[in-house]
Amino acid sequence: MACCECHHDETAIDVTVNNNHLIYSKNPKHPANVICELCRLFYTSGWCTGTGGGVSIREDGKAYIAPSGVHKERMIPSDMFVLDTDTKEYLRTPEGYKASACTPLFLDIYRIRDAGACIHTHSQNAVMCTLLFDKYFEISNIEQIKAIPKLTETGNLWYSDKLVIPILENTEREEELSDSLQQCIKENPGTTAILVRRHGIFVWGPNIWKAKVYTEALDYLLELAIKMKQFGIPTVKEK
Amino acid sequence: MACCECHHDETAIDVTVNNNHLIYSKNPKHPANVICELCRLFYTSGWCTGTGGGVSIREDGKAYIAPSGVHKERMIPSDMFVLDTDTKEYLRTPEGYKASACTPLFLDIYRIRDAGACIHTHSQNAVMCTLLFDKYFEISNIEQIKAIPKLTETGNLWYSDKLVIPILENTEREEELSDSLQQCIKENPGTTAILVRRHGIFVWGPNIWKAKVYTEALDYLLELAIKMKQFGIPTVKEK
Amino acid sequence: MACCECHHDETAIDVTVNNNHLIYSKNPKHPANVICELCRLFYTSGWCTGTGGGVSIREDGKAYIAPSGVHKERMIPSDMFVLDTDTKEYLRTPEGYKASACTPLFLDIYRIRDAGACIHTHSQNAVMCTLLFDKYFEISNIEQIKAIPKLTETGNLWYSDKLVIPILENTEREEELSDSLQQCIKENPGTTAILVRRHGIFVWGPNIWKAKVYTEALDYLLELAIKMKQFGIPTVKEK
Amino acid sequence: MACCECHHDETAIDVTVNNNHLIYSKNPKHPANVICELCRLFYTSGWCTGTGGGVSIREDGKAYIAPSGVHKERMIPSDMFVLDTDTKEYLRTPEGYKASACTPLFLDIYRIRDAGACIHTHSQNAVMCTLLFDKYFEISNIEQIKAIPKLTETGNLWYSDKLVIPILENTEREEELSDSLQQCIKENPGTTAILVRRHGIFVWGPNIWKAKVYTEALDYLLELAIKMKQFGIPTVKEK
Repeated sequence: MACCECHHDETAIDVTVNNNHLIYSKNPKHPANVICELCRLFYTSGWCTGTGGGVSIREDGKAYIAPSGVHKERMIPSDMFVLDTDTKEYLRTPEGYKASACTPLFLDIYRIRDAGACIHTHSQNAVMCTLLFDKYFEISNIEQIKAIPKLTETGNLWYSDKLVIPILENTEREEELSDSLQQCIKENPGTTAILVRRHGIFVWGPNIWKAKVYTEALDYLLELAIKMKQFGIPTVKEK
Repeated sequence: MACCECHHDETAIDVTVNNNHLIYSKNPKHPANVICELCRLFYTSGWCTGTGGGVSIREDGKAYIAPSGVHKERMIPSDMFVLDTDTKEYLRTPEGYKASACTPLFLDIYRIRDAGACIHTHSQNAVMCTLLFDKYFEISNIEQIKAIPKLTETGNLWYSDKLVIPILENTEREEELSDSLQQCIKENPGTTAILVRRHGIFVWGPNIWKAKVYTEALDYLLELAIKMKQFGIPTVKEK
Repeated sequence: MACCECHHDETAIDVTVNNNHLIYSKNPKHPANVICELCRLFYTSGWCTGTGGGVSIREDGKAYIAPSGVHKERMIPSDMFVLDTDTKEYLRTPEGYKASACTPLFLDIYRIRDAGACIHTHSQNAVMCTLLFDKYFEISNIEQIKAIPKLTETGNLWYSDKLVIPILENTEREEELSDSLQQCIKENPGTTAILVRRHGIFVWGPNIWKAKVYTEALDYLLELAIKMKQFGIPTVKEK
Repeated sequence: MACCECHHDETAIDVTVNNNHLIYSKNPKHPANVICELCRLFYTSGWCTGTGGGVSIREDGKAYIAPSGVHKERMIPSDMFVLDTDTKEYLRTPEGYKASACTPLFLDIYRIRDAGACIHTHSQNAVMCTLLFDKYFEISNIEQIKAIPKLTETGNLWYSDKLVIPILENTEREEELSDSLQQCIKENPGTTAILVRRHGIFVWGPNIWKAKVYTEALDYLLELAIKMKQFGIPTVKEK
């Protein structure tokens, strides 16, 4: 099994310099390889075209983060930033890239929620729902809701539970979101995601695979909600 | 020809333990390989993102079923459950996975209809049509209808025949669907599929390839029906 | 260069039996290989899911035709029918398949128009436009129109020319379309395609690559016309 | 690493004739390889089906341009035209192809803006927005706007800045666009793209990767604007 499907030339990586050992592994489950694989997948979903969005994994006290301005479908492990999640110091800085503006937001989420991974997309379904809903995205009585965790108690939501995702106002610069994002996370202990008005969505989970499930399930529900609105069907079913 | 396209490492499977011989084969037509291949295909159709949906094949008294919570585009044969369709005992249980909540429903369909395969999707076309139609999805005078079997007599529907798919009310837990699903199958001997309100669709056939044709043709018709509704065109043509 | 990308096992084909030499070639430009490659491509466009649609190439007095009921994205050269276009006799019949119901229609088009290839899709854009237009699909002043030939004189349509595609009424059985299709082709010498109400579209050209360009350009225009209708924009621009 | 993913047979290229050395390289970053790779990618986005659209790179005084009438997803380096950007003479002419009608337009853009690459798509999002907007496409307060450069000053647009893309009237022949395109570029020094009514969009940048980011981000914004119009939401936010 190849370490990843991006056909990059592994032999060209010198692991003795620039802390390259942190991002080089033949194991397809290594965070640097998983992030590249998922960025390619999410590019085909339209979630991170135009270098938008981002993916990060936290593992063994380190945060692996895709850089700013990278073509997500072409990313390779050597493009990756690595941070110490305790000291917030950069353990590895790739050549030719700036750190993602999402970096402080991902670190906020890791710290407050003890998350293992964060996915940020510019999905048009997310953006449209922030234009169609006021302070919260709400939907109930859809099977796919059962993929989302309750968090305030064990287990996932049931079919007829109401899923509620808070919508945060966007700021001029992504870094400026940090304060309101932190406050929002704390005020909504039951949410595993936050929508940002006219911007996109941040989703997190205990590990990257759970975060991926939540992201896919939420995007499905956001897309469905838009279609329901087009037909004038309420997204929250009256009891 | 590779046994499948998922690039999993076959040599890592020890066929002498855990009844792995039931799911390991170099034959691309082996049920365990076909299920993986189709789950990857259906993922790209948006039918089973967020670990929704499922695929099962019955062959030689055994039911092969994708597990609960698996990322469908990443599934490999060793993730598969295998059941004895007579005794309903598990012949093989994969490590780290729970059985799909669809399992009893698939077994109901195998038993009542003598089906060879079942496909369950969370297709948004299916969900939207359950919101736009009352007790039955109905459409006529579309060429693609001819891909669907009559069942109550030999052959498929003709172009101007009315295709009717019953819509079942969803339940809080998937297992709770069993009774009403069984009743619905019996009351609708001419249907090869059942829609479940705000949930998705179950499709079956004498073998996996027929079930795939029916699923694709039905999803095409469900999608077209939504577009017709958007333009105010009746889905059943007046004679 | 592989003869095609379907990963079928060429070594399994015995070219000494069943006229297999007619469909077996390592040349990727051989009609049997091209048809398989394009069926895979068209499947991803949603033009031939549920085994709908079809592709045929005429070369050296022989017509190569995809069979009825084949999963287009899985088709391999040995699934192919081969006919003598003069005698209309089958030169090769694949095991386990029936001839496509489109066969007489493709032969009509080859004979009347001296075409080198025919593509038939069940594209939803085609079906929707037959529901939104009366006897002719008409559009003008769109750049993509320039991909379509005039036929009654040399060269392609210009930007502000009006593209007109006749819409034929569908019949219960595909074979029954033959008479009206022949008449329609003769009555519309300037068309390289015919829409069939609630069914799809037939497109042809001097060779398969021209037919593919026309099919893609027409589907683009059909899709655009639907969007224009949604916004109340006339598809034919007033001068 | 393969020089590109199109599986063409490199060994068949004789670099001693027809100036083939200009388009043959094992380096995946060579313009001829990059253009082929991006045309395949853009085909899957629906930006250049039916042989529409085009991609060009300028490097070391040479312009590499995809030919007219090529199936973009099948293009190989030997299909490429190469021009001297100073003398406008053809350094290499591929067999069997005519030069793209976009050629003079690309050269205009290279000359006036000192651009390193141009991308021209027939994206339906671009065409629809030229039908929904008058003389300028305008949008503000969407995060993805931050991917677009200001040009009249350093850096990119901010979130709440208004992005303005001029809309040029289309002409009967693409070559006839040259005068008005040149004038439009000069009159709009802050734009990195021009929409052409009922035709598509031209996007350029200092290099192909910047041009790709701008194209993806603009298409995202054009698509979003259509959805906003469908819901009656203004694309420019009132302050």
